[in-house]
Amino acid sequence: MQRSTGVNPAASRRRVRFAGIDRDAECTERETIFQGARRAGVRVVGACGGRGVCGTCAVRIAAGEVELLDPPGPHARAQLANGWLRACLARPLGDCLVELSPRSLAPVARAEVEGAGGAAVEPAPAVRALTVALPRRRSPRGVADAARLLGALGDPSVARIDLGVLRELPTQLRASGWRAAVCVRGDEVIAVDAPGRRTLGLAVDFGTTNVAGFLLDLTTGVQLASLGIENPQAAYGADLVSRINHAVRAPDGAAELRRAAAGAVGALAHDLCAAASAQPREIVDVAVCGNTAMHHLLLELPVAQLGRAPFVPALEAAADYKAREVGLALAAGAWVHVLPNVGGFVGGDHVAALLATETQWDAGTSIVMDIGTNTEISLVHAGAIATVSCPSGPALEGGHISCGMRAAEGAIERVRIDGGRIEAQTIGGAEPVGLCGSGVLDAVAEMRRTGLLDARGRIQPGHPAVHDAGGRRALALAPEVMFTQEDVRAVQLAKAAVRAGIDLLLGEAGLAERAIDRVLIAGAFGAYIDVQSAIACGLVPALPVERFVQVGNAAGVGVRMALASVALRERARRIAQRCRYIELGSLAGFQQTFLGRIGFD
Amino acid sequence: MQRSTGVNPAASRRRVRFAGIDRDAECTERETIFQGARRAGVRVVGACGGRGVCGTCAVRIAAGEVELLDPPGPHARAQLANGWLRACLARPLGDCLVELSPRSLAPVARAEVEGAGGAAVEPAPAVRALTVALPRRRSPRGVADAARLLGALGDPSVARIDLGVLRELPTQLRASGWRAAVCVRGDEVIAVDAPGRRTLGLAVDFGTTNVAGFLLDLTTGVQLASLGIENPQAAYGADLVSRINHAVRAPDGAAELRRAAAGAVGALAHDLCAAASAQPREIVDVAVCGNTAMHHLLLELPVAQLGRAPFVPALEAAADYKAREVGLALAAGAWVHVLPNVGGFVGGDHVAALLATETQWDAGTSIVMDIGTNTEISLVHAGAIATVSCPSGPALEGGHISCGMRAAEGAIERVRIDGGRIEAQTIGGAEPVGLCGSGVLDAVAEMRRTGLLDARGRIQPGHPAVHDAGGRRALALAPEVMFTQEDVRAVQLAKAAVRAGIDLLLGEAGLAERAIDRVLIAGAFGAYIDVQSAIACGLVPALPVERFVQVGNAAGVGVRMALASVALRERARRIAQRCRYIELGSLAGFQQTFLGRIGFD
Repeated sequence: MQRSTGVNPAASRRRVRFAGIDRDAECTERETIFQGARRAGVRVVGACGGRGVCGTCAVRIAAGEVELLDPPGPHARAQLANGWLRACLARPLGDCLVELSPRSLAPVARAEVEGAGGAAVEPAPAVRALTVALPRRRSPRGVADAARLLGALGDPSVARIDLGVLRELPTQLRASGWRAAVCVRGDEVIAVDAPGRRTLGLAVDFGTTNVAGFLLDLTTGVQLASLGIENPQAAYGADLVSRINHAVRAPDGAAELRRAAAGAVGALAHDLCAAASAQPREIVDVAVCGNTAMHHLLLELPVAQLGRAPFVPALEAAADYKAREVGLALAAGAWVHVLPNVGGFVGGDHVAALLATETQWDAGTSIVMDIGTNTEISLVHAGAIATVSCPSGPALEGGHISCGMRAAEGAIERVRIDGGRIEAQTIGGAEPVGLCGSGVLDAVAEMRRTGLLDARGRIQPGHPAVHDAGGRRALALAPEVMFTQEDVRAVQLAKAAVRAGIDLLLGEAGLAERAIDRVLIAGAFGAYIDVQSAIACGLVPALPVERFVQVGNAAGVGVRMALASVALRERARRIAQRCRYIELGSLAGFQQTFLGRIGFD
Repeated sequence: MQRSTGVNPAASRRRVRFAGIDRDAECTERETIFQGARRAGVRVVGACGGRGVCGTCAVRIAAGEVELLDPPGPHARAQLANGWLRACLARPLGDCLVELSPRSLAPVARAEVEGAGGAAVEPAPAVRALTVALPRRRSPRGVADAARLLGALGDPSVARIDLGVLRELPTQLRASGWRAAVCVRGDEVIAVDAPGRRTLGLAVDFGTTNVAGFLLDLTTGVQLASLGIENPQAAYGADLVSRINHAVRAPDGAAELRRAAAGAVGALAHDLCAAASAQPREIVDVAVCGNTAMHHLLLELPVAQLGRAPFVPALEAAADYKAREVGLALAAGAWVHVLPNVGGFVGGDHVAALLATETQWDAGTSIVMDIGTNTEISLVHAGAIATVSCPSGPALEGGHISCGMRAAEGAIERVRIDGGRIEAQTIGGAEPVGLCGSGVLDAVAEMRRTGLLDARGRIQPGHPAVHDAGGRRALALAPEVMFTQEDVRAVQLAKAAVRAGIDLLLGEAGLAERAIDRVLIAGAFGAYIDVQSAIACGLVPALPVERFVQVGNAAGVGVRMALASVALRERARRIAQRCRYIELGSLAGFQQTFLGRIGFD
């Protein structure tokens, strides 16, 4: 068997230690520090995705040697000021100790992490915490530690002790003077520590590109910290199909992807706990949502049948497994709850978004949509939920766009075209280095409004910023940032897919567009778009803007709710059961509807 | 940290493949083939324990090179006839392929494995087996495999699927045409296979020296095969104290011992399944009994506090864990049930022996004793059970006896002294090469009867077979087999410990010896002793012989009962709770009683 992709484990590895943040990465001899850092889940900004453009992956080499790669263009260089280097242009020649610029240490990315809305949650965690003092022995016969602990709990329904906990128990009880902070889940003791330990939970929104984590105090329901990192599975392919292929074809591929996923959750646990002065072993419960492929790769479930029609998941229902079974080192007996999926293309992240937005649904008709590489759309009407998944591609998130980048400093997020003048507003007001999702949408909307695009999406000549390089037209939004004809085409395909999904859901329900009382737009991209631009592009129906609500990372809100409350897990389960999944490809007329939505009429 | 004992993993390893039986062993550069085979649980007879005497570890080298070690005496040689070598005198110089003589492939050792008695068991296994056909899909939407399977089971109480099973499920269902043999335990699916798979269980009596395994068809309760092998933990010390020390002090020591234990269970599963034309993955449930230290080492529970007063176990109660959590590769979701312990020195093996013999207890007063390195004795009287553990040492099993050996071909098992003539009967009628437990007891009894021992246990001169080598007297039972003054002393200490235990139990209950209505003698040694000899030695009270019943490996019978029936697991649990453990050391008068039983009056 041959490995189809990914990293050759036999190649000699270089260890890169990041001083100050207590983290390590490994690089193969062909990898840059940036690539190694991403794979290890180290939070380097790298807004341009490692293209050598943005300079937001600045490192200094404290020890060890690196080779500098050629910069990509005349304006870029591997060296930055004051001895800083671009990590994406530095390849370790051996083990290195590097300093990461504070500016390049990814902050909590609001767009990825935070979400608005979500009902206030009454904590009802799956794990009970209590502190016990074990009675002194009364007979010379040694009573087993397990029996003394269970006796002290005084609850006959608690009858089992996790094997990992039991392995630590004798030492733990003696070290803490026979007083213990105990966590119980159902009939099982899942953690024993010295009194004073906190009872923490970790909620994870596991996206294809980004992984957002939220650390909660389970006793109070209070969020202690939140953080977004890149999904290190990207080392095995940026898109789902490459990763599924790797899992199916490479020897040990599925295990590699599971380890990468577990590594990301572990990195989040580490960093979130550091931010909250806590220890990962205080985390006793985890809730995870993700699309169905991410869900399967995290649990190391087979994905071969997910990659081909009829796209059957191995597991759809919510499930609970021991955290160690997926390779997570948290509290000895910690559990992981995975939210239910709706189908091969609608995962627990959409269920979490529905859970988070349920209180905002209109009594009449609502649309809940999470715009991304796949855009999941639910139509809630008359007590029923119909759900589709549209293959919108990465364009709306700035992916596969020639100068696309994530929403970070230097990304153009707003575009206004005023005659010959082009106004490009960037995140943080920095020099423009690329274009993020909301900027992409704005660019198309403004080009269409000003006639720079015709109804079929062709860039028109004559504007001073429209260049024509080798017969391929492009609009220069900034000196380094071009928006090309191919970019326009990518947006057209994306918006047509989303809009066709909405059309077909309405058609199935026998509803007209104007019947939609509310459109809840979830997701990182959806949080920052200009709704008018989305309407102008034809991505969403032309409804009064007050019917649109941008709810941010609703999946993140939903998974936190599920972490905090077993009642809400049950609610999520019921929502998932109510969802009637409609396979777009199976619908007569999808292709025609899609083609009808390609243009800008 | 330094390793106190055991094998240095850094030393270069030689792989020894045993042709024909599909098994591998690894040897360090200092180890013989015999030692490697023992550690790997390969069933080499090696009756003399690898002393180069018996010739029952014959191998032929098919490929590779070995170094021959010096034989131990003038009669021994490394080479046997026809190109066979003694494995205990052959040290691999590199990887080898060896052929094990059919005669040296350990047969089922009856004495270790089989036990008499035990009520006929109505099968009531923990695992339910059923065969289902999954309904064809009715909608184009792909229903998740998990949901289809649970739906086909049609039992809403079964709601979970083991993660290991789930990982195999999609492939399994498609390969078997959507028909499946399913095993359910409680609310969880623990195995899915093609129809026709059997539902097997493995019962294990995990002794310090020997490990006996029994393969059962759980549906019928029928035993398919049984087998005894040496405990490969012996590589880390023959006795419990050495192993506890290794687990406590050596880095990774506890994990090494757990792996060795799991390796033994795995080897039993492999060989038993081979004998029954089955696969280890058909084993869905395991029941294990052992002394408390073996129990802890198998589960990798800490043993530091087991090795010092007050000898507190981490876990005493019966418990169930996933087989993979202790390193066993059986059915994907197989479980292990460990029988309850009674205390630090009375383990689940004694509970199993009590379970097996319960129907044979007299309505009046019974003694149940399992003679071994520790001899556990229970006095059952008036509905109560009082239990002691006597540190009898290995002498009664032929251990620490100069020519002691296990009960295998060539072992002297019966001794009669008739004037100047000594009659030594061996197992299998072979040339005598050593002395097993029953032979040891016979030798002492006959020497005492014929006046070759005085009341204090001193060997008397004058008999033609009594030699005097360097002031240390010994009786030659055969040309190669001496029984020395030290051997007699070892037996005296052993029998005094056992007898003092009986005395003190009777004293606690206010009973006289004659009140004992039945003595149930369990264990490999106990199965073959001559009760008259035991009485003559003073090992057991001088009661009418018809009150004695030799029940063989009652622990093995009991653990099989617990495997076959959850009702009997509950019964074992209640028996363990009824046992009142008496720490001999805590009793005033133990030392005096012990000393009073040293002699032969």
